[in-house]
Amino acid sequence: MKFNSHIENLPIYEAGKPIELVIREFGIDQNDIIKLASNENPLGTSKKVIEKIKNVAQNSSLYPDDSYYELKDGLSNLYKVEPKNVIIGSGSDQIIEFALHAKANEKKGILVSGVTFAMYEIYAKHVGAKIYKTKSKEHNLAEFREIYRTNKNDISVIFLCLPNNPLGECLDADEVFSFIKDVSEDTLVVIDGAYMEFAKFKSSKKEIDPKTLIQTFSNALYLGTFSKAYGLGGMRVGYGIANEEIIKALHRLRAPFNITTLSLAAAIEALKDNDFLKETLENNFKEMKVYEEFAKENSIEFIESYTNFITFIFDQHQNATKICDNLLKQGIILRNLKSYSMNAIRITIGKNEQNRRVLDMLKKEI
Amino acid sequence: MKFNSHIENLPIYEAGKPIELVIREFGIDQNDIIKLASNENPLGTSKKVIEKIKNVAQNSSLYPDDSYYELKDGLSNLYKVEPKNVIIGSGSDQIIEFALHAKANEKKGILVSGVTFAMYEIYAKHVGAKIYKTKSKEHNLAEFREIYRTNKNDISVIFLCLPNNPLGECLDADEVFSFIKDVSEDTLVVIDGAYMEFAKFKSSKKEIDPKTLIQTFSNALYLGTFSKAYGLGGMRVGYGIANEEIIKALHRLRAPFNITTLSLAAAIEALKDNDFLKETLENNFKEMKVYEEFAKENSIEFIESYTNFITFIFDQHQNATKICDNLLKQGIILRNLKSYSMNAIRITIGKNEQNRRVLDMLKKEI
Repeated sequence: MKFNSHIENLPIYEAGKPIELVIREFGIDQNDIIKLASNENPLGTSKKVIEKIKNVAQNSSLYPDDSYYELKDGLSNLYKVEPKNVIIGSGSDQIIEFALHAKANEKKGILVSGVTFAMYEIYAKHVGAKIYKTKSKEHNLAEFREIYRTNKNDISVIFLCLPNNPLGECLDADEVFSFIKDVSEDTLVVIDGAYMEFAKFKSSKKEIDPKTLIQTFSNALYLGTFSKAYGLGGMRVGYGIANEEIIKALHRLRAPFNITTLSLAAAIEALKDNDFLKETLENNFKEMKVYEEFAKENSIEFIESYTNFITFIFDQHQNATKICDNLLKQGIILRNLKSYSMNAIRITIGKNEQNRRVLDMLKKEI
Repeated sequence: MKFNSHIENLPIYEAGKPIELVIREFGIDQNDIIKLASNENPLGTSKKVIEKIKNVAQNSSLYPDDSYYELKDGLSNLYKVEPKNVIIGSGSDQIIEFALHAKANEKKGILVSGVTFAMYEIYAKHVGAKIYKTKSKEHNLAEFREIYRTNKNDISVIFLCLPNNPLGECLDADEVFSFIKDVSEDTLVVIDGAYMEFAKFKSSKKEIDPKTLIQTFSNALYLGTFSKAYGLGGMRVGYGIANEEIIKALHRLRAPFNITTLSLAAAIEALKDNDFLKETLENNFKEMKVYEEFAKENSIEFIESYTNFITFIFDQHQNATKICDNLLKQGIILRNLKSYSMNAIRITIGKNEQNRRVLDMLKKEI
């Protein structure tokens, strides 16, 4: 059977290995496995949210209120925007998909950083769009400007991942605003803030406020997620915030019931538990120091991280793939960045006892 | 901002009105509302599945095992196919989306019945595909043949909704097999079996066995869902079964983690509870009779239904929209088929007390 030509060469996202697979493949006991590969919240999910899910579990047969009225209301209050400025996605991934289906095509490409979230490229290829990448792995706005200037007519979407997954670095908000000023109003600028809660907790200079962003720029789309700081990675809820014109266009691409009834209830509840969010952020940066110290002691290069993970970059004497494979056999799941052409490992910041054990075992491998 | 031209005119699926909206708009107490608009399972969700969800609620922070190993295993056992013949979707809707992105485009259209599930057309328009429809509202294979014969080179996907939503009729399996025999091997034939559990319970002549289907036809794709008979409408889990070549192509379009961690656990558990399935099917056809008798007594035309709903077609003396609006104000949510250009109402078969109340109130409106 013949398929549409562009799908033949579609890359497939390499997800962090699930715990279930390690149990199956290596016969390791579930309790001995530490997974710090997918930037899941090491504190789990807020207890209040878990209670809420249990209370609404009996509604699993019912489709959600597809207007997502209450969730949009919660997000509108959080960010001081209007519900009409908000769209809900099955993870912020899905908003990326909508944005690309709305703006990119075989003639209109996208511009991204050298190493950044792989789904931008994957969804762009779904619509046959060309990918422009900076040579720098980390976000370099001078290069973004240069590529954009040269290829302005061929680029319809620019992605800035702030802070950047899988590297961890983050541009300052004022640099970002001054960059967007020079972008054509017909080019969509997507600010992917999946890890923004972490970045702004660490440094107020990194904070991109969605309201200010969309009031300043009619062509900006802010993305957020419940998967990271809010501890709902398994529930697939994200959102986009933009001017009504953009939100309306994206809504045309949204199929009904794109999140589950329980996910909707969980996200609404998660917005109310500020204590859990605070605990998450505090644990993260306290434990980040453990990794930074380890790296310094062992002369491992690392990128200063504004996220819930840290990326260790190895020199030619070390092989990240070999290290990851060896650790995997012992039940430690980390994220090898080989698929990003890097000799590097991304490690989610875990709980103290997890981090200690991971670093003890990593020490033996390097 | 300019958007890709094809999205400007995209139709938007009109979902059944949620209970929350009726509470908000009409101030009706939740307990006084009966929603028989979205073909949700009136028995709710299996108690065993609800327990399972409660037990895994604490895993909401963790992404699912994206291989969906255990669920594919369960479906493979149920249908006696191989896991490589199965793809999991966020509802079977998402498999429809994948199929159209894989096969349809601006030059290759789709062929559907005059009145059928609206998402075929909506997703087809996402890729700019032309829609060929039979004049008959219900599936008429002679017309399908005729349109296909005349436009063979311009049609790449044929949808047969068996049984058909929102009308309820169902072709016999042997007619379907003999139809597919005459279709080019390069044309994908999608058998949407979202309500097949109901159809085959009522009549074995309607049963399309996925294994036989895909062994007979390399170009057939069978769709199933957990939303209806399995009572998991709010959890968004569906599946496609086809030859490996097709499944591989569809997988290229699947983003990781397209169902939630709790949905995955719920679907795996739902496959194990045959008693719930049996009770669902028995209640459905016992209660269907109540509607059929009402229709006969009141001279309302109806389509013999092989699903969990029944469609009443009104003559020129009655106005389905007015009836639906009046009932809505009293807390009864039914599905007006006006958006399908029909003076008709689709009613989900509910529990006995719901059906009695709905028919009592409907009686006053006609």
